[in-house]
Amino acid sequence: MEEIIECVPNISEGRRKEVVEEIVKNLRSTGVKILDYSSDPDHNRSVITFVGDKETVKKGALQVARDAVRLIDLRKHHGTHPRMGAVDVIPFIPIKNTTMKDCIKISKEVGKQIAEELRVPVYLYAESATTPERKKLPNIRKGEFEGFFEKIKEPEWAPDFGERVVHPTAGVTAVGAREFLIAYNINLATTDLKIAKKIARSIRESSGGLQYIQAKGMELKEKNCVQVSMNILNYKKAPLYRVFEIVKMEAARYGVNIIESELIGLMPMKAALDSLAFYLQFPKLSADQIVETKIYE
Amino acid sequence: MEEIIECVPNISEGRRKEVVEEIVKNLRSTGVKILDYSSDPDHNRSVITFVGDKETVKKGALQVARDAVRLIDLRKHHGTHPRMGAVDVIPFIPIKNTTMKDCIKISKEVGKQIAEELRVPVYLYAESATTPERKKLPNIRKGEFEGFFEKIKEPEWAPDFGERVVHPTAGVTAVGAREFLIAYNINLATTDLKIAKKIARSIRESSGGLQYIQAKGMELKEKNCVQVSMNILNYKKAPLYRVFEIVKMEAARYGVNIIESELIGLMPMKAALDSLAFYLQFPKLSADQIVETKIYE
Repeated sequence: MEEIIECVPNISEGRRKEVVEEIVKNLRSTGVKILDYSSDPDHNRSVITFVGDKETVKKGALQVARDAVRLIDLRKHHGTHPRMGAVDVIPFIPIKNTTMKDCIKISKEVGKQIAEELRVPVYLYAESATTPERKKLPNIRKGEFEGFFEKIKEPEWAPDFGERVVHPTAGVTAVGAREFLIAYNINLATTDLKIAKKIARSIRESSGGLQYIQAKGMELKEKNCVQVSMNILNYKKAPLYRVFEIVKMEAARYGVNIIESELIGLMPMKAALDSLAFYLQFPKLSADQIVETKIYE
Repeated sequence: MEEIIECVPNISEGRRKEVVEEIVKNLRSTGVKILDYSSDPDHNRSVITFVGDKETVKKGALQVARDAVRLIDLRKHHGTHPRMGAVDVIPFIPIKNTTMKDCIKISKEVGKQIAEELRVPVYLYAESATTPERKKLPNIRKGEFEGFFEKIKEPEWAPDFGERVVHPTAGVTAVGAREFLIAYNINLATTDLKIAKKIARSIRESSGGLQYIQAKGMELKEKNCVQVSMNILNYKKAPLYRVFEIVKMEAARYGVNIIESELIGLMPMKAALDSLAFYLQFPKLSADQIVETKIYE
């Protein structure tokens, strides 16, 4: 039985194409299958999505960490997306014939290796977290790279692996196991950042909105608009259509239209079909009803 | 290179489960891959979807025809869906590494064999049609089983294969090659058949509506409602969302809501993602952005 684990490292480089290409090239040579990679120059961040079996994803994740630490200097890094490390976060996701437990084990092995080999302190997060405060990435990342030189000395912020010494150019890294997450952004037809921030606050869990939604308001200078940038941590409980319609509704109260949706990386077929079923009023729509899936399954 | 042709015979039996099961069982033994089959008791019709290479789909289609002719007696058949044959229509669709030309050739070989072996007159339709009047199935089917005993004697309605003698219990059959078609129905929250008929007229090509849409208004006694029953002959030119929104809009003028959409058989991934992209305002959404497709491709 083929085992498939997905890994989605986020690296703090979204502008220098040659750096991203080098990281991706070296990652490919480890034998993983790269499903997707995309860079955002405003965020100044890239997201790489790859899959493999346990041993291969471990090798791949370590290779990305090595290259990111070598090629990225956070002292010179600016972007709209918060970050604390050259390789900011490395999640492992069970996809097929593997369990969350397997992914937690892998995350700990990879985290330990990163701390020992690269001297980058590692925090375990999500399902791998060792304290409740470390479950949510934004909690760990608060203060960002620049703030971590102080934060790491606080009693409750000792890293899970490595010394209490922030890497001078590569910061600290979060590693963990989690369920599949959809990185989903909505661009608004306005340049007023306050509106994006208000909408983000109205929809996200941490401000009392929908559970399983993380959201931030951001400026997209290159596109001359603002964005509600979101993570959907559970697409079954917080389906895409509901997120979209709430953002649309909240935007309308400010007289603002939606320009477009943006998917960063990938989404599961089930997420796509559930939302289509909502709009077209299919009682249910499953991958079984898609001709290609049935042929190639 | 694996060649894939799809075949979707429609048989005039949607109530006697044991008959449908027997036909499907014998079809399976020919070596085709059955993707789907579904029966509608109101329509009194079943649609079977299977794929295979050229030789295998030919064998499969002939087997369905043999069994349908043997097991179905149109003299006792009643349903809301028009029909002219025990096996009413057999379309062949090029899916992968095959062309429309290949499918036209197959349709002619299968049509010839049905006429010779089963004594059922065959009309070539769609891309295989030998005259413009035979392109569209409803033109051929007009008059249905009962009317064909006269219609077959008309100068322009000589069958493409077989004598001018309607099979006494199995009628006549249409065989042809066509592009992928989506069989799509919308159920309305009313029992007023006139409304379904009016909406069907407003959307279908033959009454001046959207190109590539065939539509009929039908009564669904079992569900106690009416239905706009449609074929989308080109889902790229007439996308699902547009069909749905037009039907919804026309229904609203009569104060009627949509109960649900119904997909008969399968739809291509592209059709699903195009409509989702419309509603969620993705500039584009492709199979490449679905994690399962990327892993198993």
